[in-house]
Amino acid sequence: MDKIDVGRKILSANEIFALKNRQLLARSGKPCFNLISSPGSGKTTLLVRTITDLKDALRVGVIEGDLQTDIDAERIRATKAPAIQINTEGACHLSAAQVNQALAKLPVEGLDVVFIENVGNLVCPSAFELGEDGKIVVLSVAEGDDKPVKYPAIFAKSKVLLVNKIDLLEGARVDFDLDRVRADARRLNKTIEIFPVSAKTGEGMQNWYDWLTGQIRSR
Amino acid sequence: MDKIDVGRKILSANEIFALKNRQLLARSGKPCFNLISSPGSGKTTLLVRTITDLKDALRVGVIEGDLQTDIDAERIRATKAPAIQINTEGACHLSAAQVNQALAKLPVEGLDVVFIENVGNLVCPSAFELGEDGKIVVLSVAEGDDKPVKYPAIFAKSKVLLVNKIDLLEGARVDFDLDRVRADARRLNKTIEIFPVSAKTGEGMQNWYDWLTGQIRSR
Repeated sequence: MDKIDVGRKILSANEIFALKNRQLLARSGKPCFNLISSPGSGKTTLLVRTITDLKDALRVGVIEGDLQTDIDAERIRATKAPAIQINTEGACHLSAAQVNQALAKLPVEGLDVVFIENVGNLVCPSAFELGEDGKIVVLSVAEGDDKPVKYPAIFAKSKVLLVNKIDLLEGARVDFDLDRVRADARRLNKTIEIFPVSAKTGEGMQNWYDWLTGQIRSR
Repeated sequence: MDKIDVGRKILSANEIFALKNRQLLARSGKPCFNLISSPGSGKTTLLVRTITDLKDALRVGVIEGDLQTDIDAERIRATKAPAIQINTEGACHLSAAQVNQALAKLPVEGLDVVFIENVGNLVCPSAFELGEDGKIVVLSVAEGDDKPVKYPAIFAKSKVLLVNKIDLLEGARVDFDLDRVRADARRLNKTIEIFPVSAKTGEGMQNWYDWLTGQIRSR
């Protein structure tokens, strides 16, 4: 029997919800970024500092994904930004359906940008579109400089790489070759933007803020 | 229709291979530990230092799990210990079938202990038994002290928690409350052994070596 090409891709349940999220965000004209990293790379601290430093310029909403607890949403709410916590109860990544429910609870119309902080995991979240405009991968210098070659998918798919905790490079407290990370990440992804930052001391954060506000202004 | 209890649990494919691995290791009397952590917590560095410091007392073999590359197996082989690399090609954890193939290639009879270094991921590997005698979770102080409450499964299931990179606590370079981690881990797991160590400076490693050699002697 000949194969019949029905001419359309059959979407998975996750892709259907990702498309819904993308349409919802596009209608309201709000950019949305999906933050992905290992546990403990400093995603929440990065968001807290970004929200605080840009509080007069940007209204930020956050969707927080964690296996358990609402520790991270509480940290975001302490800045007065709205945050919706999703507990995945053991699942290793956020799904587009979960994000769809959370978007319904966020006051999207009153915001300038939505961040999704995914479950801390450098592997699984890279395979699930959530309807975001771009993925942002965060790598702490304490994790070592071999991560782009060992976990290539997320570096290949991200718009931005935030190399965090660069304060730990001072006095060579951790062994980390930033040039190696740049070269390996660019080999996987020619257009990736790379910003070395310390969310703790503020070093380098202005470059990230300039990129972020540029993304919002260009819409 | 009444339900019929066939009186036995149906094993998954993974559980069947885990049982095979357990039987193989039990026959040869070799203990086997499954190291699990986030990417970049220092599992390979811990193994390299353990193998080097105990080279006159213990013959160690290693099964290395990574999405890509054989960087970690090469680091182990540089110590002269045998290492078998498994590339999961994107999968977020090792399977018992992969470990079964690797065990066939390791010279198990000539070893005192087998370590499996799982894919860097604090979530997925905790759900897949590999036939090991125990899981060992590694947490770098740079990841923060909220990880036991945020990723409880692996802390609940592990025999040992190695709190690594304690050299970074000096001068308060990272914010990390070891007492909080101890309390949260023990709340999840009353019998977990907790060893604060620095695989870089060697601090605290003797306590880990004493535990490890005790496990081997007691068989």
